[in-house]
Amino acid sequence: MPKKKQKPKKAKVAKEKQNPKQIAAKINEMAKGIVADIKKGIDPEFITQQRGRSNVEFDEAKGILRLGDKETTRTFLNIGHARKFMQTMLVSAKSHEYLKHNKTASIREIYYELKHTVPDTKENTFDSQGESDGCIVDLEHSVDTIREKLNLHANPKGTLYGDITLRDKVHHNDKFNCGKLGRGGWSIMSRLEPEEIEIVSCNAKYLLVIETEAMFERLVEERFPQKNKCVLISTGGQAARGTRRLIHRLHTERKLPVLVFSDGDPYGWYIYSVIKQGSMALAAHSDFMACPAAKYIGMTLDDIETYELQNVTEKMKDGDIKRAKEMLDYPWFKNKQWQAQLRKAIREKVRIEQQALANKRLDFVATEYLPEKIKKKDFLP
Amino acid sequence: MPKKKQKPKKAKVAKEKQNPKQIAAKINEMAKGIVADIKKGIDPEFITQQRGRSNVEFDEAKGILRLGDKETTRTFLNIGHARKFMQTMLVSAKSHEYLKHNKTASIREIYYELKHTVPDTKENTFDSQGESDGCIVDLEHSVDTIREKLNLHANPKGTLYGDITLRDKVHHNDKFNCGKLGRGGWSIMSRLEPEEIEIVSCNAKYLLVIETEAMFERLVEERFPQKNKCVLISTGGQAARGTRRLIHRLHTERKLPVLVFSDGDPYGWYIYSVIKQGSMALAAHSDFMACPAAKYIGMTLDDIETYELQNVTEKMKDGDIKRAKEMLDYPWFKNKQWQAQLRKAIREKVRIEQQALANKRLDFVATEYLPEKIKKKDFLP
Repeated sequence: MPKKKQKPKKAKVAKEKQNPKQIAAKINEMAKGIVADIKKGIDPEFITQQRGRSNVEFDEAKGILRLGDKETTRTFLNIGHARKFMQTMLVSAKSHEYLKHNKTASIREIYYELKHTVPDTKENTFDSQGESDGCIVDLEHSVDTIREKLNLHANPKGTLYGDITLRDKVHHNDKFNCGKLGRGGWSIMSRLEPEEIEIVSCNAKYLLVIETEAMFERLVEERFPQKNKCVLISTGGQAARGTRRLIHRLHTERKLPVLVFSDGDPYGWYIYSVIKQGSMALAAHSDFMACPAAKYIGMTLDDIETYELQNVTEKMKDGDIKRAKEMLDYPWFKNKQWQAQLRKAIREKVRIEQQALANKRLDFVATEYLPEKIKKKDFLP
Repeated sequence: MPKKKQKPKKAKVAKEKQNPKQIAAKINEMAKGIVADIKKGIDPEFITQQRGRSNVEFDEAKGILRLGDKETTRTFLNIGHARKFMQTMLVSAKSHEYLKHNKTASIREIYYELKHTVPDTKENTFDSQGESDGCIVDLEHSVDTIREKLNLHANPKGTLYGDITLRDKVHHNDKFNCGKLGRGGWSIMSRLEPEEIEIVSCNAKYLLVIETEAMFERLVEERFPQKNKCVLISTGGQAARGTRRLIHRLHTERKLPVLVFSDGDPYGWYIYSVIKQGSMALAAHSDFMACPAAKYIGMTLDDIETYELQNVTEKMKDGDIKRAKEMLDYPWFKNKQWQAQLRKAIREKVRIEQQALANKRLDFVATEYLPEKIKKKDFLP
């Protein structure tokens, strides 16, 4: 993976603010070019960014992952490209239609909606969702946006709790405070674009992002958000796109500091890094998703000694150790503190879960562990 | 698995209404008996119900699964029982403590809270969560209740949407309407006991339980609940215990008819049967969880022809076919309609997903499929 090359930015700020009309216009423009080429008798082209690790760069100045400059050109009259070209046009037209009619669809629905047998052939437009998913990514890159702005989404996951008021501008104009929903909290939607969901107000000093739902429930039961003036988000493992968008928006629109609290193992640390710097698979979308100023509050392997948790560690699996070795080489983990964590994990082969803090007592995490770390600013970068 | 034997009911109705004090008293009573035996120099006993399929019965009159009469007795001075006896006492004492102090804990937290090395030995109280989970089930059966009433819970999962107002009596007395939370809905808690969560009002003609979150989002986007005066719950696959409790409570407290909408495959049909009759693993708890009057609205394999979905079926996997063959023999699937579905699945080896209805058009499910089935009462039993 090449290191960051400084390249001129293409109006990055504007990108996030584009509304459905503007996105639809971009698809239209792309399609018009193709139609014009066909009319002129020229083989039409579809240009998108090259994906995969060879085109992923770590932008050190901004602290986020991003895609490099490499492009891929697909031409219709190439027998190796023709099917994919047809598929990309179907996805583009359908997404354009969703935008025009204010409809949204899951990526599984658009697959099913477009799947049919081409008349007078035995050829299906799509044989698996993997094919349409690939076209969605191509389209995102081609018009330089994210699927949420193409009115597409994956499954939702994640919960929000705290003194934050949202308004769903396209759904009965519902306005609600996510700290007044009992202990359940608000189920985070799969798409959370600013034109639809407005952050009306947020009375919090910081946002605490939590890996497991059970720890989220613990902190809600302990009234941690009220006592510490913070907002909680549980990701339920790796954060879904809607949840990442919400974290990013609270971070950028509301300037809320973001603290991430995960299990003390390579999987948990990777969850943190995806929230902070973005992921390799979605390197093109870091501007929409990443929170480069996020900090890591725990669990660390040093917590095992500090809080005498030796009794409640778990053995690391081979997959975890392999992942830790890979992470050692990622530029965004190349700092003293993370290198020390990763080396310790590889050497000692133990992991420590968030819920292991219950070994002290149930409310230890809420009354001592988190407040102490926050007071001392005992974070990993 | 033996068929139902009629046996005298033990105050089943009262069981569901027992409050934390009464449950704590039952644990106390059990523990007092053990202490008394020890003082008398008698080997103390712990009695619980036998689990496993050999003690599961289908109660045809009530239409639910339940545990039979077989019991297991564990004695402390039996070298094969001593460790488990000790573990059961630890779990019982801790659960009693939670009840006394109005604390709740996840089953992972109680494991971590109780795990330690027995002084002057190398013996851990627990070596894995599987051990404490087993003790929790033993305790549930011994005091004839569910873990939720022991203030224990597993992870939450599931979302609620619609004109239903809940009040969290132990958390700021929050009162909120689950139809006014934008398109996100309310994240269903892991525990939903009546002493804590009150169903204040519910303006709906029926409850629609949906397997996938994406279909839930579709129906919310189409304003299906408003147009059809219903409440939606998404289970996100197999329903979690909190979600099953909520469905059961809406069904029994509010007399809301329950319709289940899943993928058309053995996995989806099994999700339905667990909501309706209960599960074999939790046969002891059907009185708290089952909804014997629930009906199945779809997908069925007949829908493939009726709605011309031949293009968007999926192949069944071997595991699905094996499951269908097992289900043929379950007494609660022994009726003409389900036998026909299962045989068709085994014969044709195809499945049909809820989202495949998008092949007609996105709103087809909301404007034609569901309303038509409801109008014609075209349900499976």
